[in-house]
Amino acid sequence: MKFEDIILTGDRPTGPLHLGHYVGSLLNRVTLQDQYKQYIMIADLQALTDNADNPQKVRDNVMEVLLDYLSVGIDPKKTTIFVQSMIPEIAELTVLYLNLVTVNRLQRNPTVKAEMQSKSYGETVPAGFLMYPVSQAADITIVKGTIIPVGEDQLPMIEQTNEIVRSFNRIYGKEVFPEAKALVSKVGRLAGLDGKAKMSKSLGNAIYLSDDADTLKKKVMSMYTDPGHLRVEDPGQIEGNMVFEYLDVFDTNKEKVAELKHQYRQGGLGDVKLKMYLFQVLNDLLTPIRLKRAELAKNKDAVMQILLEGTQQVRLVAQKTMDEVRKAMHLNYE
Amino acid sequence: MKFEDIILTGDRPTGPLHLGHYVGSLLNRVTLQDQYKQYIMIADLQALTDNADNPQKVRDNVMEVLLDYLSVGIDPKKTTIFVQSMIPEIAELTVLYLNLVTVNRLQRNPTVKAEMQSKSYGETVPAGFLMYPVSQAADITIVKGTIIPVGEDQLPMIEQTNEIVRSFNRIYGKEVFPEAKALVSKVGRLAGLDGKAKMSKSLGNAIYLSDDADTLKKKVMSMYTDPGHLRVEDPGQIEGNMVFEYLDVFDTNKEKVAELKHQYRQGGLGDVKLKMYLFQVLNDLLTPIRLKRAELAKNKDAVMQILLEGTQQVRLVAQKTMDEVRKAMHLNYE
Repeated sequence: MKFEDIILTGDRPTGPLHLGHYVGSLLNRVTLQDQYKQYIMIADLQALTDNADNPQKVRDNVMEVLLDYLSVGIDPKKTTIFVQSMIPEIAELTVLYLNLVTVNRLQRNPTVKAEMQSKSYGETVPAGFLMYPVSQAADITIVKGTIIPVGEDQLPMIEQTNEIVRSFNRIYGKEVFPEAKALVSKVGRLAGLDGKAKMSKSLGNAIYLSDDADTLKKKVMSMYTDPGHLRVEDPGQIEGNMVFEYLDVFDTNKEKVAELKHQYRQGGLGDVKLKMYLFQVLNDLLTPIRLKRAELAKNKDAVMQILLEGTQQVRLVAQKTMDEVRKAMHLNYE
Repeated sequence: MKFEDIILTGDRPTGPLHLGHYVGSLLNRVTLQDQYKQYIMIADLQALTDNADNPQKVRDNVMEVLLDYLSVGIDPKKTTIFVQSMIPEIAELTVLYLNLVTVNRLQRNPTVKAEMQSKSYGETVPAGFLMYPVSQAADITIVKGTIIPVGEDQLPMIEQTNEIVRSFNRIYGKEVFPEAKALVSKVGRLAGLDGKAKMSKSLGNAIYLSDDADTLKKKVMSMYTDPGHLRVEDPGQIEGNMVFEYLDVFDTNKEKVAELKHQYRQGGLGDVKLKMYLFQVLNDLLTPIRLKRAELAKNKDAVMQILLEGTQQVRLVAQKTMDEVRKAMHLNYE
């Protein structure tokens, strides 16, 4: 059977999106929406797996993430944006898939293992957390996703999904689902303001797409540079200097960046001046995004409507998938 | 908050129902349907947890179990019968509950532990099997069940449900769900034809409600009596003699049973004569059930319609429950 190429991607609504998301996934989605049918899922239920006691935070961030999507140029005419919790078929498929996976297999999943350690759950890991590769398999297959943009660390999740797909198709004797291919991002991870390997909300080292100019300036001014570069006239280091890392990523004027690097190495370029330049580059990038966001935020009902319409479209697709699943599993009572 | 008393009970459709079900639960349901709002769930998804590769068997037994219910006098005007897989809200609630239970808590559940051992899953226990107390909590609470008829061995399942109910109500600050009380059957387990502690399909020692008279006679004739009672004139033992156990349970003429016991103990009552008497008692009980079953089986579409209508009623209840759940969890997007 030949399946259409379909992209499924998404985010957990646990905070507004930042520059790491922008270069790591959002820009990519803006390009991909012209080449493929693309679904973006706001994974509110997955966000609840470790925020069960703070549902209002998750709820508020659904709107923030949605505003971020639309302001960077994700176009609801090309990309279908939907919210996970409003697709009951995902839960149905998750429950069915749980019979096709052993507990041991889930406990050996490298992504789950790594995340369990980083959250130091120890003996108290919630069942929903252990099960989340199964829930992701349902997210992907309910829309018959074939291309899944992921980071390297998420490859075991795609493998788990394909194991379930193969089991299902084999046991029920029908090729209901396609296998999915990982589309691994070529862009490395954007480091945080503090020089830590990853820009992230929880590390408090992120520049948000929704930051205003003042906040952006303060954050850029606080960036980690060369701790040995004390006076303007001193020579400075480029390696590990976050300002240059960001310029390499975000400044399209590569000649100018090369010139600044030369000057910095020689001595005579102060951190403040350099940071003001980066601020300008980032502010030029973020200003139109910020303006569009402000405009959209004036009418949140209309923005929510975009999400509800996308969700309605996905429900139709999901119901069609579940009809096939029920038929294959002899669960179609009539 | 005051909750209405609601019964939830049900069966896994893995085979037709037998005399053990009749005295252990079915008779009780026929009485209870006049006293309470009663739901009976045909747990097809739960049956699939250990029959994932044999969906047609599960599907066929949904009809068998339904015919059994109706022929013993469960009245669809008083009792709502529904099929689990057609209530997607149960799956939704299961997925939400998985975040409220730890994997360790599930692994320590005595009922799950015992069943895992009896199925000798070892390292390969399916995730769906480990999770099934959570799925049962969803079955019970989706209709806000408060009275759950169970055997002693199922008490830990009710406790698990109530733990989830308390967590949910506490975390989300609303008393959405009532706690459930177990209604433990006073009738002991009916032993099998072979004298083994439990009548069960898998032990092959069961008399089915749907057995015809010939099959019934053959099965009664094969029953375990007193292996030392070789000749008619020998004195025989009552204890552990299945024929007398069944007479105690099924014969309403207690004087007659006492007389037969006396005669058997003295010697002079042969096993064949005794068994023919039991056959008559059981056949008198099963004949009207068998006739009603045959009548119903002539129009299986109409029988299926009863299930579909019951299921439709439960969906409305389930949707109302999920509306409350979504509101409590801030998942009501509009």
